[in-house]
Amino acid sequence: MHFMTALKAAWQQRDSLLCVGLDPDPAKFPAHLQGRPQAILEFCTAIVDATADLACCFKPQIAYFAAHRAEDQLEALIAHIHARHPGTPVVLDAKRGDIGSTAEQYAVEAFERYRADAITVNPYMGRDSVEPYLAYPEKGVILLCRTSNPGGSDLQFLEVGKPGGGVEKLYERVARLVAEDWNASGNCGLVVGATFPDEITRVRALTGDMPLLVPGIGAQGGDIAATLAAGRTADGTGLMINSSRAILYAGVHANEGEDFAAAARRVALDTRDAINAQR
Amino acid sequence: MHFMTALKAAWQQRDSLLCVGLDPDPAKFPAHLQGRPQAILEFCTAIVDATADLACCFKPQIAYFAAHRAEDQLEALIAHIHARHPGTPVVLDAKRGDIGSTAEQYAVEAFERYRADAITVNPYMGRDSVEPYLAYPEKGVILLCRTSNPGGSDLQFLEVGKPGGGVEKLYERVARLVAEDWNASGNCGLVVGATFPDEITRVRALTGDMPLLVPGIGAQGGDIAATLAAGRTADGTGLMINSSRAILYAGVHANEGEDFAAAARRVALDTRDAINAQR
Repeated sequence: MHFMTALKAAWQQRDSLLCVGLDPDPAKFPAHLQGRPQAILEFCTAIVDATADLACCFKPQIAYFAAHRAEDQLEALIAHIHARHPGTPVVLDAKRGDIGSTAEQYAVEAFERYRADAITVNPYMGRDSVEPYLAYPEKGVILLCRTSNPGGSDLQFLEVGKPGGGVEKLYERVARLVAEDWNASGNCGLVVGATFPDEITRVRALTGDMPLLVPGIGAQGGDIAATLAAGRTADGTGLMINSSRAILYAGVHANEGEDFAAAARRVALDTRDAINAQR
Repeated sequence: MHFMTALKAAWQQRDSLLCVGLDPDPAKFPAHLQGRPQAILEFCTAIVDATADLACCFKPQIAYFAAHRAEDQLEALIAHIHARHPGTPVVLDAKRGDIGSTAEQYAVEAFERYRADAITVNPYMGRDSVEPYLAYPEKGVILLCRTSNPGGSDLQFLEVGKPGGGVEKLYERVARLVAEDWNASGNCGLVVGATFPDEITRVRALTGDMPLLVPGIGAQGGDIAATLAAGRTADGTGLMINSSRAILYAGVHANEGEDFAAAARRVALDTRDAINAQR
């Protein structure tokens, strides 16, 4: 199914804009999983099964698998999501960016090996570095625009000359390039951090109904109400609001006797409802 | 050994500025390797053993391994280079870029799992996205600055306002940020494509003796003489001039009876000597 079709259906059917980020850190796993050979897969599938009905998508972060030599577990995790929770899109958070011939290899990695429905991509190398992903018309291509980290301003907030006069910020240029040019097949999205609601407003104005992936609520301090006010579309969707650590490691602060997946579900439910209260 | 120390020693001892890029594409392998389970490793180690005395560094491109589920072969390849050709730095071409907590995972992947001596990194997310790599003081961190692909101009060539007045190109800002701030530990380099010798000149002027990784000669059409004139330092070094496909697949056009590794050596030797003729 086309990523955009699946995402829109998930927004409606799950009544959720919540993206559950899967950043597995074995050092934070519950004691009974420590040291098990498939601990990353077991942890993530438990989180997935406990939260799938509350999420519009899942976003595994490939770095957390690669650092632990766990590519096979990432493959198995995504296969599990497709098999057990059909219709839940998987966004592979990889932030790749390279020349065309290399980007073709990364596209094979993301879409054919891992069977992700969408990938995050870095725009710094320009259009031909993105085309190999766009060549998969069913897949989503989500470009970094305005990121949630402090250093995001180092380049993204620089003023650049606008064709025809005036200036705009670099992240605005990226948003315009994507909306006006790279999105010809209608399969692009943008990453805009929740820590910058004014910029979410600007990006929404420049991109119509384009889906925005919004990291930075929870551990990074972004505000849900401000994010919704800035970024929701007329029908109250348009956003994949990511929470990773606050959900995954809710068990660290869980109620007595509650297991980690139940704790994750409780926080995911609270987060989904907090988002819906602002829609 | 510190990446910069090893690189400088390799420049001198091998009398070479040639970086051999390892972008293994099984479809282009010689017939006797087709279908073998470790074909990627066998191909790359043969190329490495045939060219190590001619190269100042090797640059495996991780996408070509990841697309073929061959991370284990990349680990074995780098271990082989360290064991058989000590003193030859390995630059992992990964172009990673993410928030700090994720970048820490990518740094573990590159430096602890793969034991690379340096990594290429994308600067779009700013300083805190680069710090986890800089935290390994022995390792090289090579930031994308002006890339060799056509779309490189989409963002990198935009004019941005300069502090104190005037304008500069985005790639110049990146070069200045790296040279004046991010390189506090002296372990940074920059990627500047051979297809843009004027920009190599600018980057050299902004960065003193910082090592520049220069892709784009050979298949991408960059000119060796112009690259050397623009980028060499006073002692005739300062450059890692990459060639990948022209060396790896020289065997496709080999002399009758010549095997692929011997053909690769012949082209590597010719390329090294063509570079040295301009030093």
